[in-house]
Amino acid sequence: MRMYDLIYKKKLGNALTKEEIDWMVEEYTKGSIPDYQMSAFLMSVCFNSMNEEEITTLTMAMAHSGDMVDLSSINGIKVDKHSTGGVGDKTTLIIAPVVAACGLKVAKMSGRGLGHTGGTIDKLESIPGYRTDLSMEEFVAVVNEKGLSVIGQTGNLTPADKKLYALRDVTATVDSIPLIASSVMSKKLAAGSDCIVLDVTTGSGAFMKNVEDAKTLAKLMITIGKNAGRKMAALVTDMDVPLGRAIGNSIEVIEAVEVLKGGGPDDLKKVCVELAGAMLYLGEKGTMEECITMAENAIASGSAYNKLKDMVAAQGGNVDVLENTKLLDKAKYTYEVVAEESGYIGKMDAQEIGNCAMLLGAGRKTKESCIDFSAGIMLNVKTGDKVEKGEVLARFFTNDKESIPHAVEKYQSAITFTQQKVLKSALIYCNIY
Amino acid sequence: MRMYDLIYKKKLGNALTKEEIDWMVEEYTKGSIPDYQMSAFLMSVCFNSMNEEEITTLTMAMAHSGDMVDLSSINGIKVDKHSTGGVGDKTTLIIAPVVAACGLKVAKMSGRGLGHTGGTIDKLESIPGYRTDLSMEEFVAVVNEKGLSVIGQTGNLTPADKKLYALRDVTATVDSIPLIASSVMSKKLAAGSDCIVLDVTTGSGAFMKNVEDAKTLAKLMITIGKNAGRKMAALVTDMDVPLGRAIGNSIEVIEAVEVLKGGGPDDLKKVCVELAGAMLYLGEKGTMEECITMAENAIASGSAYNKLKDMVAAQGGNVDVLENTKLLDKAKYTYEVVAEESGYIGKMDAQEIGNCAMLLGAGRKTKESCIDFSAGIMLNVKTGDKVEKGEVLARFFTNDKESIPHAVEKYQSAITFTQQKVLKSALIYCNIY
Repeated sequence: MRMYDLIYKKKLGNALTKEEIDWMVEEYTKGSIPDYQMSAFLMSVCFNSMNEEEITTLTMAMAHSGDMVDLSSINGIKVDKHSTGGVGDKTTLIIAPVVAACGLKVAKMSGRGLGHTGGTIDKLESIPGYRTDLSMEEFVAVVNEKGLSVIGQTGNLTPADKKLYALRDVTATVDSIPLIASSVMSKKLAAGSDCIVLDVTTGSGAFMKNVEDAKTLAKLMITIGKNAGRKMAALVTDMDVPLGRAIGNSIEVIEAVEVLKGGGPDDLKKVCVELAGAMLYLGEKGTMEECITMAENAIASGSAYNKLKDMVAAQGGNVDVLENTKLLDKAKYTYEVVAEESGYIGKMDAQEIGNCAMLLGAGRKTKESCIDFSAGIMLNVKTGDKVEKGEVLARFFTNDKESIPHAVEKYQSAITFTQQKVLKSALIYCNIY
Repeated sequence: MRMYDLIYKKKLGNALTKEEIDWMVEEYTKGSIPDYQMSAFLMSVCFNSMNEEEITTLTMAMAHSGDMVDLSSINGIKVDKHSTGGVGDKTTLIIAPVVAACGLKVAKMSGRGLGHTGGTIDKLESIPGYRTDLSMEEFVAVVNEKGLSVIGQTGNLTPADKKLYALRDVTATVDSIPLIASSVMSKKLAAGSDCIVLDVTTGSGAFMKNVEDAKTLAKLMITIGKNAGRKMAALVTDMDVPLGRAIGNSIEVIEAVEVLKGGGPDDLKKVCVELAGAMLYLGEKGTMEECITMAENAIASGSAYNKLKDMVAAQGGNVDVLENTKLLDKAKYTYEVVAEESGYIGKMDAQEIGNCAMLLGAGRKTKESCIDFSAGIMLNVKTGDKVEKGEVLARFFTNDKESIPHAVEKYQSAITFTQQKVLKSALIYCNIY
């Protein structure tokens, strides 16, 4: 078999066979197929797509390219959640405790931030002492004892996806539905949970810029998961505007704690309750309505908050900073971005706002960069809000004073003013089972 | 500037600016842009093409990536010819002497064979002693004295194209009109002639499989050349069937000598006279009709044959083998491929026949392979000919006995029989000035 022929076949719009895809993934992972051939292939996929059979085959080949996590020593139903990426998305910090409080097991491996999107592991590491690098034995023990654990990837999980993702990231081949679906689902299948809820984001801060593409992606991933014997659900949620008000690391932990204490922004709370409800429903805790009520009650009763504290304590984190979030490190500099005109906020470019937070130190400029946990942005107004000239739009936090002017300029250009009243977009577009 | 952004721009179907293309070619030639990004870009071009301005800019950037040959020390009008590739294409060996015999200067750098297509330099090297590696001074001296010289590329000509061509060859991105046009024209512009005639081939043995694409390519290359101040013409010629009857190296030299001695196959002679006529016309030797008659007379009078001998002698080659071609090395094994049924030859897959010749030793399997100059195929019948079962279709020549069975099988499957009389396709589809 020659990689040249597979590139040419896909360029002509033809479907690859299982033998061809399996061979390609194996040889690429081994390093026998060079990156320059793989990137030409990936670009052909961006133009000519893949059919459902090809995508399923690709997903399974990537999932089996490394270790398959065995969670059989964890008692009970294991549920997982995955978001296709967003700005201000701290839902895992809320949902995992809620679901665990309702009796399901959450054994979750999360990622780090990349580009304009933040990562759950970076956020958790802003809690002093919290270990994200548990061994598999420690991970299983924490889940069995506390009902939940969130760690970074451990072992040799989906090496094919790691290599492919790094290549896609530098060759403008990220935003392809078959490539996103196979990347996400290979990781989720390798991670071993019984039930998987997907949060497929859409809008200016997401890879899927329109709702129809997001629905297509969601349905495709559900089919792949079901074919692999998992229980699947997906929500298509809005990421045209950042979720909640905090964008950063420690300030997102603070916002998550506020929600678990019964406060916090409405949009964030609503998305979390819906996602947690879907997870409970897949775990057969009741009807969809009952499951949503159950999630709300877990927050209202404080049992979810207690689960978060249990997990943080079990993984070496300082629980005091959750009780009193003022104990978390503060950034040296605060800067208020003010409105240059009066009107309604017509649009926010969530991706650009994510990039602003990165500039201030909340994300990595390159893979090797360090994160400033206290850096970030607190939004004061969001799409649809009425503001007067001079009113505060957002507060910046940073330890790097020199980053502020560029970030301010970027932020101002990410916000569009209008004189007409603005209809807020839906928060959740659909649920798919 | 980031290569990522240029890939993304082309992927969306947008045109690149001059600054962007210049930067890309320079950085890629230097090695600062990795192959995996360039191949993703090339694949985007295959899908989204380039406009005329982009192609002209790309051509000029590649032409200026290395040395620009200065032919100003050669007296008179310098004319060049380029074919987009074919099987059995020995036209340069005939045309260069014809045009030189009519008083124009031919200072030609030719290439080696790649894949199923042969190369003029390999063919010339089958003449014992013939040097294709003249220095620039020797090259200019031979042209000034004898009127013509054909050598391999000398100096650092179009390094950008060399790198890009090697990458396209392994990433299935060869058959793109903008990429072919810029590759051919960058080499021709760097090679320095005043007038350029293009032989744009079309059909099963060519990169352009249909006439319309070949015309588009021809017009585009003419525009690029004219914009660069050169006199341009193009012929779109048939390469659905190999040209002439000989496919190999020394056997093609023999066939070329036959034409120059007034014999040889009609199709080969006709294409050569038309191409030489176009070159003389660009060199202002008369009307198109007069120029064609002039080319015919140069063959009939023997003056063109004398020019070939002059050049071979001046470059150290043994002229005796031209006078008596039986002196050239013969292959050890001859094999006759016979018809397995009776009927008309309906189709010949010229590319596959080129591959057969390569298998027998006439071409390189990899860049490092050696060529067997005496190996090749002599066609006995061509498309449209009537044959009886058991009649000889072709004769194979090789020093590698073991290659014969596979080559026979390939050859048989490259020939289609039919019971209906077959209309021969046109030999020359159009002339474009």
